[in-house]
Amino acid sequence: MIGENAKPHHPRIVVIGAGFAGMQTAQSLVSSQARICLIDCNNYHTFIPLLYQVATAQLEPEKIAYPIRTLFRKARNFHFLMAEVQRVDLAAKSLQTNLGQITYDYLVIATGSKTKYLGVAGANEYAFPMRTLAESIQLRNQILNCFEQADQETDPLERRKLLTFVIVGGGATGVELAGALVELIKSPLKRDYPHLDMREVQIFMIQSGERPLVNLPAKLGDYTARKLRNLGVKIHLNTRVNNLSPDTVELSDGQIISTATVIWAAGVEASAPKLSPEIPVAEKEKLVVEPTLQLQNHPQVYAIGDVAFATSEGKPLTGVAPEALQQGVTVARNLKLQLQGKSPQPFKYFNKGRLAIIGRFSGVGKIGKFSFGGFLGWLMWLGVHVTYLPGFRNRLLVIISWFHTYLFRDRAVRQILATPKNR
Amino acid sequence: MIGENAKPHHPRIVVIGAGFAGMQTAQSLVSSQARICLIDCNNYHTFIPLLYQVATAQLEPEKIAYPIRTLFRKARNFHFLMAEVQRVDLAAKSLQTNLGQITYDYLVIATGSKTKYLGVAGANEYAFPMRTLAESIQLRNQILNCFEQADQETDPLERRKLLTFVIVGGGATGVELAGALVELIKSPLKRDYPHLDMREVQIFMIQSGERPLVNLPAKLGDYTARKLRNLGVKIHLNTRVNNLSPDTVELSDGQIISTATVIWAAGVEASAPKLSPEIPVAEKEKLVVEPTLQLQNHPQVYAIGDVAFATSEGKPLTGVAPEALQQGVTVARNLKLQLQGKSPQPFKYFNKGRLAIIGRFSGVGKIGKFSFGGFLGWLMWLGVHVTYLPGFRNRLLVIISWFHTYLFRDRAVRQILATPKNR
Repeated sequence: MIGENAKPHHPRIVVIGAGFAGMQTAQSLVSSQARICLIDCNNYHTFIPLLYQVATAQLEPEKIAYPIRTLFRKARNFHFLMAEVQRVDLAAKSLQTNLGQITYDYLVIATGSKTKYLGVAGANEYAFPMRTLAESIQLRNQILNCFEQADQETDPLERRKLLTFVIVGGGATGVELAGALVELIKSPLKRDYPHLDMREVQIFMIQSGERPLVNLPAKLGDYTARKLRNLGVKIHLNTRVNNLSPDTVELSDGQIISTATVIWAAGVEASAPKLSPEIPVAEKEKLVVEPTLQLQNHPQVYAIGDVAFATSEGKPLTGVAPEALQQGVTVARNLKLQLQGKSPQPFKYFNKGRLAIIGRFSGVGKIGKFSFGGFLGWLMWLGVHVTYLPGFRNRLLVIISWFHTYLFRDRAVRQILATPKNR
Repeated sequence: MIGENAKPHHPRIVVIGAGFAGMQTAQSLVSSQARICLIDCNNYHTFIPLLYQVATAQLEPEKIAYPIRTLFRKARNFHFLMAEVQRVDLAAKSLQTNLGQITYDYLVIATGSKTKYLGVAGANEYAFPMRTLAESIQLRNQILNCFEQADQETDPLERRKLLTFVIVGGGATGVELAGALVELIKSPLKRDYPHLDMREVQIFMIQSGERPLVNLPAKLGDYTARKLRNLGVKIHLNTRVNNLSPDTVELSDGQIISTATVIWAAGVEASAPKLSPEIPVAEKEKLVVEPTLQLQNHPQVYAIGDVAFATSEGKPLTGVAPEALQQGVTVARNLKLQLQGKSPQPFKYFNKGRLAIIGRFSGVGKIGKFSFGGFLGWLMWLGVHVTYLPGFRNRLLVIISWFHTYLFRDRAVRQILATPKNR
């Protein structure tokens, strides 16, 4: 049996996915008597909120990717398995991976979400998503390659196409990416390409809602739109994308933009493994769970994070990291209760607030009833994110990089670096 | 015309290759009146002496890769071109690249060297070279993948194969890699894989000479061999590799080693673009140059660094970074002399010494007539390399990483991270 370790008389808990939800579950469980097996297809945990800083040449990818085994070095009841889960047999309490079969007594499904192209023709082929570390590196390479090519391009229309970037989505990811992209271009790339006229650069943000950051109060969304417009971002509100070709994007308002780079920051759906028997799903293919986060009729199976449709006090969750972390804590506690023969308790989300960064010295946030924008929002965003980033070395190096980025207005990680695939 | 810039009345110097030699040439030339065009297939300069630290999970790849344009931000007579040079027409003074044709008045060929498998069957298919950043990342992924697979492998022979690493070559690269690999395994990986028995790990070094580091005095080579053997490295001296299969390597002494990872740190040859007319070559396909570093019969063309067969005071150079840097300075000076109608002067190498690092607190070196090993060698190696590394941020971050590595005996960059190829 793969992924096996000692103490066969103790129950075995398998956690699929080492994102915020799965990682927190496993970390909260290592103090228990159970045998823990954590499965992920990567050997690292990705700190997703900082992916946009990888894509915009601020941070080395490894700084926001923490080796999973390191977080569990002291745990003796823990086993990590780098594998793809292909199928879960809920009746037989077993899962099929590319490395073989694993059985469980309890299962936690925390497999997260994946990009959904909302039926837009050409999006799957031509858009650049930014949900994984590899995708962020690919986007970084694409942005830098466009400038290298534009520097040699004598045809003004071709050059304009290379220097036009279209961000689809006006949520936190779209806003953060837009702000960081402007700053990358305005200072470091302007200095790198003295022969290019940076007035030819265009950045569009296409937002289906009536303002950016619809999960925050309207005045913060309006503030964000104003800030981004001041930075030169062309924001199309109440607009959708109709289709993409290799060098254009067509909007629902009729405009056709000539561009080499469409960045997809809109639309995700749950990314569950194949389950048998099938489980009812809610919007975005999310697995429906009980208030205790257990699957209906499968009390030994939990689903948390972006893969689950969970509610707290009747309101659905919105898919941010604090929700996933808190669900991980709850599931670990509920599993410990079950191991003691007690009943699991409902999940209750404690909303510590929400933050989004727009750019240098500028962010927005809402904590309790208190809304704020500007420098305070920026500082709080940096503080919160560096606190949650795993690993002292990473924190130190990220702080140094931020000093470099924000004080000197420079970006260090501007290598077009595509590594070969593993053999 | 691509790669063009202002001042057409000034002569145009094209430098191919942004390694130590080409980079130094361009940097020394920007103070001249000439128009400089630097061409490289990457947009970054690779600090090759630290590649082994990328391969052994000590440093993020971006830390030893410096964006070329940043080094020339203040130069107005400079143009960088990210392109592949396909052919040089020495008669027409032009070169063909994948982006089009470029003409030159003066040309500096600094295209370096590439891995040579010395006719060993299977080496090209199965060995892991470590000459580029991408290859170093691939090697890092391979090493970490072997441990992940070994952790799940129940067949002891298969596991042994996964945990056996064979380094071909006992020069500085082979020695540094062997020491760093032992330390990676002995501390961080041992803590990461508590279920693996690290006594199953084997590291071989295959050296064709009678000791490692043949370019250093015999007593330092013997000291190095002793040190590595104390660390557990199995050194085969006076031994060559006969052939490789996907899971074995056969040595000239008859031994067949079962292994998943053969690392090729032996044998390079010059990597010149196709030249017409052809130019005489010396050993390892190196272009023969005059004492002034000019090609014979082509006084407006220079070849330097690993691509050239150059001598200093009658002795051939050995292919280390200080030689390349000093050649770059000489070529820039000779070009300035030529521009003033004066005669180029012969190259003379000033040997500042040689250093190699074996591992934590242990290195060897020779400066003038003074040979030394141990802590002093280690400290000098770190000092010299961090001094030559381009960029203040990189230096600071590398020093912090070294503290982390050498004091805490840990390695941070243990992500198995293969990025997709560029589109």
